[in-house]
Amino acid sequence: MRLNQLNSFYKIKNLAKNDLSLMDEVIKSRLLSKAELIQDVSYHIINSGGKRLRPILLILIAKLFGYIGNRHINLAATVEFIHTATLLHDDVVDHSNTRRGKPTANLFWDNKSSILVGDFLFSQSFLLMAEDGDSKILGILSKAASIIAEGEVKQLTASIANLHLSIDEYLQVISAKTAELFAASCQVGAIIAGASVKNQQAMYDFGLNLGISFQIIDDILDYTSNSKTIGKDIGDDFKESKVTLPIILAYKNSNEKEFWERVINDKNQREGDFQLALEYFNKYEVVPHCLKLTKEFLKKAKLAISTAPNNEIRSSLIDLLEFSINREF
Amino acid sequence: MRLNQLNSFYKIKNLAKNDLSLMDEVIKSRLLSKAELIQDVSYHIINSGGKRLRPILLILIAKLFGYIGNRHINLAATVEFIHTATLLHDDVVDHSNTRRGKPTANLFWDNKSSILVGDFLFSQSFLLMAEDGDSKILGILSKAASIIAEGEVKQLTASIANLHLSIDEYLQVISAKTAELFAASCQVGAIIAGASVKNQQAMYDFGLNLGISFQIIDDILDYTSNSKTIGKDIGDDFKESKVTLPIILAYKNSNEKEFWERVINDKNQREGDFQLALEYFNKYEVVPHCLKLTKEFLKKAKLAISTAPNNEIRSSLIDLLEFSINREF
Repeated sequence: MRLNQLNSFYKIKNLAKNDLSLMDEVIKSRLLSKAELIQDVSYHIINSGGKRLRPILLILIAKLFGYIGNRHINLAATVEFIHTATLLHDDVVDHSNTRRGKPTANLFWDNKSSILVGDFLFSQSFLLMAEDGDSKILGILSKAASIIAEGEVKQLTASIANLHLSIDEYLQVISAKTAELFAASCQVGAIIAGASVKNQQAMYDFGLNLGISFQIIDDILDYTSNSKTIGKDIGDDFKESKVTLPIILAYKNSNEKEFWERVINDKNQREGDFQLALEYFNKYEVVPHCLKLTKEFLKKAKLAISTAPNNEIRSSLIDLLEFSINREF
Repeated sequence: MRLNQLNSFYKIKNLAKNDLSLMDEVIKSRLLSKAELIQDVSYHIINSGGKRLRPILLILIAKLFGYIGNRHINLAATVEFIHTATLLHDDVVDHSNTRRGKPTANLFWDNKSSILVGDFLFSQSFLLMAEDGDSKILGILSKAASIIAEGEVKQLTASIANLHLSIDEYLQVISAKTAELFAASCQVGAIIAGASVKNQQAMYDFGLNLGISFQIIDDILDYTSNSKTIGKDIGDDFKESKVTLPIILAYKNSNEKEFWERVINDKNQREGDFQLALEYFNKYEVVPHCLKLTKEFLKKAKLAISTAPNNEIRSSLIDLLEFSINREF
């Protein structure tokens, strides 16, 4: 089962393989002859085994609608640059120690480098968009960048040490900080392929719902995964008193409100608290509840893609939905 | 004399007054209904009395070439957003304690907010460009943003604790981190006014040389100004062991190489060292040398603008060159 799911991810990655290699060449060429630090930090991120889901989605959805051309290569690099820039800045904001199983850029180098190299990648993404010259796409991706930044601000102000965060507010935060770029990547793929406006919107919806599911699973894995597979430190969210879906559900009807108020609202954590949190998750069946909610979003994503042409790529994208909920990394 | 110079700045600011008010409305409207933190940090920056030189240049150069229309309002907001975003990120990188005489955003709030709100402003600038829809302008401003980020990286890696920085390398750094956005702002003003390609380039050159002069003076004021007029802490560069023109000139032929190696390369500073640095500046006539170099760039700027229509705005822009070298803030 697990192996099958993994196969479905590699299968989809394989469908985009040649285009991803071309994208890598674009990325490398944009960093060449720049300050050494830019090359160092960027290569570190790019070669650290990220899933590259956003460029894969952009590439495959363009192909799903029969796109023949090469605009998708530079635009795939664009969304990967935006994503990498936000990762670099996230690492500074979160003080996260590992990302994708390797030390994060801000420990390897320092916060200053992460900020400035992130800015550089961000500006490169807009340079690529300017070269592409499509103002509709520019509008979509700058809006996405703006929504991501706003989502990160909201997360910082609303999700930390706040047990009153509602499920709706949580979903708003993850829609903005994660799902929006999934959605925009899918929409851009449909646009360059000349899909109908209705299908462009459907692909946006597909990406948005996939992105929401993806982030909910990420937030579960922050408690249940082991560092080797997810590539991040387990318990990071807990340590930062960041409220995500598992905590919202565990706190809601619990008899342990004092515990949660101490470790989250008061940020007063002792040895063994993380283990205790996991026990309470078990007691209130938090993970099955999270998965139930995730499945609703995956269902919406599946419905959205049902209007697209029925071919091998569509089947693989539907398999990707299954992978996203069963993944361990 | 000093009062006259100040008058020339207020005169030029006055010429752009109405357009700057319209720009402020655009800026406010873009931050409205966003996360409270975004409004807070942005208002703090916008209301803290910055000179707004970049939007003023864009507005006045458009008018210099007879522009009638309203694109310059949103584009002025665009360059101010880019500038403010880089200021916010700079404050984190530099650990500067005051900017424009008020506590910097990162002390008032924190580093995290400065990074994320900077990202938000950056993305808003691209959203404004997307709405403007001119891919040439988008290309120019994204290239400027990219050059600024690269310049900041270079400054971080080449200017700190490095007495071997040459004058040429220093000029490269300040051209990238400061002058490029001056140049791009001037070029964009000429483009929307429909100026000839030759004049677009001349305005770019005007802005670039003005920007270089401006940064050299800033770097002098970091040693000679008092905090109340420049609005920044005096001695910041020295404390950070950042090598700028005054140190390059003081070190070059000095008999005090050991002193500079200790305080800059070894970052080993004691009480009284800053005062000693000022004495060595005096001994080797560092400030007059800096001003001599600045005048060369101002001459180039004056030459560049000589091809533009001869009207009241051009005279004021030439007065601005005089102001930039005599300013105390």
